[in-house]
Amino acid sequence: MIIVMKRGASPEQIDSVVARIKALGLGAHLSSGEERVIVGVVGTPLPPTLDDEFESHDGVERVVRITKKYKLTGWDFHPQKTIIDVRGVTIGGDEVVVIAGPCSVESEEQTLATARAVSAAGAKILRGGAYKPRTSPYEFRGLGERGLQILASARDETGMAIITEVMTPADIDLVGKYTDIFQIGARNSQNYLLLEEVGKAGKPVMIKRGLSMMLEEWLLAAEYVMAQGNPDVILCERGIRTFEPSTRNTFDVSAVPVIQGMSHLPIFVDPSHAAGKRALVGALALAGVAAGADGLMIEVHPNPDQALSDGAQSLTIPQFDALMPRLAAVANAVGRALPVREAAPVG
Amino acid sequence: MIIVMKRGASPEQIDSVVARIKALGLGAHLSSGEERVIVGVVGTPLPPTLDDEFESHDGVERVVRITKKYKLTGWDFHPQKTIIDVRGVTIGGDEVVVIAGPCSVESEEQTLATARAVSAAGAKILRGGAYKPRTSPYEFRGLGERGLQILASARDETGMAIITEVMTPADIDLVGKYTDIFQIGARNSQNYLLLEEVGKAGKPVMIKRGLSMMLEEWLLAAEYVMAQGNPDVILCERGIRTFEPSTRNTFDVSAVPVIQGMSHLPIFVDPSHAAGKRALVGALALAGVAAGADGLMIEVHPNPDQALSDGAQSLTIPQFDALMPRLAAVANAVGRALPVREAAPVG
Amino acid sequence: MIIVMKRGASPEQIDSVVARIKALGLGAHLSSGEERVIVGVVGTPLPPTLDDEFESHDGVERVVRITKKYKLTGWDFHPQKTIIDVRGVTIGGDEVVVIAGPCSVESEEQTLATARAVSAAGAKILRGGAYKPRTSPYEFRGLGERGLQILASARDETGMAIITEVMTPADIDLVGKYTDIFQIGARNSQNYLLLEEVGKAGKPVMIKRGLSMMLEEWLLAAEYVMAQGNPDVILCERGIRTFEPSTRNTFDVSAVPVIQGMSHLPIFVDPSHAAGKRALVGALALAGVAAGADGLMIEVHPNPDQALSDGAQSLTIPQFDALMPRLAAVANAVGRALPVREAAPVG
Amino acid sequence: MIIVMKRGASPEQIDSVVARIKALGLGAHLSSGEERVIVGVVGTPLPPTLDDEFESHDGVERVVRITKKYKLTGWDFHPQKTIIDVRGVTIGGDEVVVIAGPCSVESEEQTLATARAVSAAGAKILRGGAYKPRTSPYEFRGLGERGLQILASARDETGMAIITEVMTPADIDLVGKYTDIFQIGARNSQNYLLLEEVGKAGKPVMIKRGLSMMLEEWLLAAEYVMAQGNPDVILCERGIRTFEPSTRNTFDVSAVPVIQGMSHLPIFVDPSHAAGKRALVGALALAGVAAGADGLMIEVHPNPDQALSDGAQSLTIPQFDALMPRLAAVANAVGRALPVREAAPVG
Repeated sequence: MIIVMKRGASPEQIDSVVARIKALGLGAHLSSGEERVIVGVVGTPLPPTLDDEFESHDGVERVVRITKKYKLTGWDFHPQKTIIDVRGVTIGGDEVVVIAGPCSVESEEQTLATARAVSAAGAKILRGGAYKPRTSPYEFRGLGERGLQILASARDETGMAIITEVMTPADIDLVGKYTDIFQIGARNSQNYLLLEEVGKAGKPVMIKRGLSMMLEEWLLAAEYVMAQGNPDVILCERGIRTFEPSTRNTFDVSAVPVIQGMSHLPIFVDPSHAAGKRALVGALALAGVAAGADGLMIEVHPNPDQALSDGAQSLTIPQFDALMPRLAAVANAVGRALPVREAAPVG
Repeated sequence: MIIVMKRGASPEQIDSVVARIKALGLGAHLSSGEERVIVGVVGTPLPPTLDDEFESHDGVERVVRITKKYKLTGWDFHPQKTIIDVRGVTIGGDEVVVIAGPCSVESEEQTLATARAVSAAGAKILRGGAYKPRTSPYEFRGLGERGLQILASARDETGMAIITEVMTPADIDLVGKYTDIFQIGARNSQNYLLLEEVGKAGKPVMIKRGLSMMLEEWLLAAEYVMAQGNPDVILCERGIRTFEPSTRNTFDVSAVPVIQGMSHLPIFVDPSHAAGKRALVGALALAGVAAGADGLMIEVHPNPDQALSDGAQSLTIPQFDALMPRLAAVANAVGRALPVREAAPVG
Repeated sequence: MIIVMKRGASPEQIDSVVARIKALGLGAHLSSGEERVIVGVVGTPLPPTLDDEFESHDGVERVVRITKKYKLTGWDFHPQKTIIDVRGVTIGGDEVVVIAGPCSVESEEQTLATARAVSAAGAKILRGGAYKPRTSPYEFRGLGERGLQILASARDETGMAIITEVMTPADIDLVGKYTDIFQIGARNSQNYLLLEEVGKAGKPVMIKRGLSMMLEEWLLAAEYVMAQGNPDVILCERGIRTFEPSTRNTFDVSAVPVIQGMSHLPIFVDPSHAAGKRALVGALALAGVAAGADGLMIEVHPNPDQALSDGAQSLTIPQFDALMPRLAAVANAVGRALPVREAAPVG
Repeated sequence: MIIVMKRGASPEQIDSVVARIKALGLGAHLSSGEERVIVGVVGTPLPPTLDDEFESHDGVERVVRITKKYKLTGWDFHPQKTIIDVRGVTIGGDEVVVIAGPCSVESEEQTLATARAVSAAGAKILRGGAYKPRTSPYEFRGLGERGLQILASARDETGMAIITEVMTPADIDLVGKYTDIFQIGARNSQNYLLLEEVGKAGKPVMIKRGLSMMLEEWLLAAEYVMAQGNPDVILCERGIRTFEPSTRNTFDVSAVPVIQGMSHLPIFVDPSHAAGKRALVGALALAGVAAGADGLMIEVHPNPDQALSDGAQSLTIPQFDALMPRLAAVANAVGRALPVREAAPVG
């Protein structure tokens, strides 16, 4: 940490900063330039809020933290890319993994129809919400355990792995009985107790990016999970909130390469929540693959106009079928694989 | 709800929209202009996501929802301002209520010293965190139940009411044994199960605004609490996340009059979290009172440079003492009361 | 336009709205629902700020504009995609056009070296600033006319077309003597008099998106140019300002498909200004092509560490050479062409 | 400037950084910690984009600029508050100065009626646009020179000073013949050539904050004016663009105390453009004064429902009359003066 004193900071102010550093068992190195004094703080561990403290210290102009706040999620402490195996699906490897399925599990029929179709088209993991966070208390909140059972049936039939959201610590055991991957939603991405509890549950965890979450905060959310001894965390960019009203959120495709520079964790993109409109999902999905995403999460519904949630952003099955070969072509163009089942010959 | 069809929408597209409306048991009124057809949807209840559904319907250009999504929190359903009595303190009335205290309860000594001082200066409610949400898992997380006990002691001694944050449903019973008001933090403002559970606990609830929460979403979060039969909700603006780096958050002072136009709920402001810097807290607090806030929440610490959290934004006790008469003067200037204890005569 | 009256709006308030509409020579259609009255405004032309006016009218809850504010730039008035020919380069067609070159023209040697290299790699248009807008008055502002002459020499030698920024109306004649395409920078994207004057100059105009410009505002900026009789406008997404600090701007890749839905104008992307960091430019460029961009604008410098502006985001020539075949592969994968010169055989 | 090398940066990378620093005639001080090397850059002048350059240098993790980019606008170079006298009105002193008037000059009658009324209520400076920047080319653009003449007549009659916007360098001479203060609008706040030219015109300049302008960028815009030898610059906060749709812009009241900490320049607030709605203007104006603003700019129109621009946010004359004594009361409460004419006795 470097503490930049104000021009004309008094010797007493400088001494006070140094005294505080020493009281913490750390070392202080002074460097006096022509205009001002700069104090380097040496030693570990740095209290995590020491920068905040010194920011308001008399005579201090600015504090610069040099060490990163995240550890387990960063390359420094884990120089290999994280690869996660979920029922034979390899996440974080060369292959771009496609998660697809309805926003909410609404019925066995709807879920199985979707699972069969997206599996046939090349998706490896089935998504579907049994517990739905809704902005308004008057909206459909999911089928609960019945939804989990439907997902499990779809897994049994298709061989896909499944992912579903858990919203509160009390549900972790139940959801964990069924799901292969826990999903933490954007609005719970800084629900720290949920992150810790799910970190103890022994299964991979996907953390959606919060609506106004900085990338460093996202890694710190993942750090909560990893600090429980769970190395299997997947990040998923799903759009951030900005001033632009033409999309539900602004798809921050830059998050893919930036996260890959900061962290070894696999990073997925969710073009459906970013776009909020079916007509845009394809372009954003292609952009995500081109930018290097390790996977995609796409909402698909057999009859999206009558979906109980997020119908406007769900692809129809034929739209998804048409998109997959295009995703595969872009994946190949950037040196990744995205195996797509061959269409069965007609007649 | 009004559905605006595209220029040149086909009769089949229009018929399909009308058919869907009728299938929901609602009425459809068509109005054909020179350029396009507009469909009015009549009847109740409107499915809450019907606008989303129609947004992606073939031939539809735009959907305009006319009824508000929030009900219990709005003036239409509750034409009197909500007034809440907490241990004799009236929230939502003519008086501007000041909540003050440390970010975290760190020790009995620190908390009692602060409580005595802020009470003497005119604060009516003591704040202090016993369970702290932290961006990083490696930071101080609060004293837990010991912190609650310290707050209760401070209440016993000073007669102040107390407010403290609850982070997860499992803690509600314990926190509720001590606190007078539950605080829901900004990062939990869309943790819907927490909102519902705390809504059942029979005590007033203050909901901080989320970092990128639109005002309508905030009222819907309050709606989750009120839908449990709890009418005593307080809102607290604490800054939103924008591009401007010079403050921790951007204090959206407009939220005060806008919320007062939408809702009968009391609205407070927290200049400490908005500013993030002690030197700015006074100006923002004064601005909040001038804009009509029903109360303030201000962080005060006897020795902020050594606070375990948020020291940079905590006022010292002398700073708080100096601020209170200025707040009282502005409150008076806008026709509100903010009674400040007279300084005891010296000697 | 639809005017939604408040619940309980008085007959006098409704009459006043209707009277104002009629005074403007327009028609008013009333529709009375169970809860409120809705007034449809019929006729043309609608005064452009009529929605603002009615928003504050007594008894009005909300105003919904149905007709779009932009005309010439929208599909309704121009149902064919705009295709622009610049010195034999076709913009807006099947081919993805690459503009490349240094941020600033610094010297003949630097510019020619870059032009030769990017042309050999497949770029068709050379960029380079002779007049540079700088946040601080103490930074390098460009070589002025000498810079324009250098660009013209590079055009003569390589056969590339050239594009350069014009910052103020007084410079249009001079810049127009040299450039093939006028560039309007992000900070001038709502400098309306500049847009009008450049619209009269008889050459294509590229408008960068402003830092916090909504897409509709961008089309209205283009409308200023087109309203002067100049149909040849190109839009260029270059990142918007958000809360995320890890990139210089947030690359809004969704702008590509959204604009293509709204407008017939070609849309380019500038991954260099969006990223602000060389290491991210490739991923964003690939994402832009995958999302369907009609072209790219990429900063390239023979020695970026010593560039007089924007060195941090400029690719080296070998980096650009390596990127072009990857861009071509992604273009092909999404059904577009991006012809890349074959590397000359060695030896 | 401090250059933080990456963990494990090679000696060659460090040498290359040092060599570049020395090539610029600057000094380099190395400090080797346990984990990494930090290079301090000593000497002047630092090239303004040196931080950008080093950000992308091999082996560099981060660059920290210590000296501020702005000079003339900062306290370091000008330790007295700037006080500007305009026709006997003192801006930047103890008195809170009120600028009021219509958005656009529409007619002599409208302007004079407004001028008389706001002058009688205590406003000292008359605003009114003769040249209007409009988002759409199809809106009213102002009366041009006729508008300037009307403002001058209003000055002659009332004795108020006048302020009006100039949009392009070619208009400076003409506008300067009439106005007392030049106004630079938000959309032109980074139109650097306009700032320079208006800086040469010998009259005070008010710069509105751009829609997504960081405070440092704002001071650098003011620096463009001051660098021409014009010390009389006034800043005016008018709301920034955020995700919140309930106000036209988000009024960043924190800008008042933050700017006052950075700069000696007077800072005004414009609650009208921030709010965009008449009903909110009063609360925001009061907040601005409470936060310490040196003045206010408020839109007032004798018949706002029929204004040619910004009617929705203009106060009526009776509303302005009612607001002024409230502003005066808050000004007094924070130790400022805002003299209001006594209402003439009735009858």
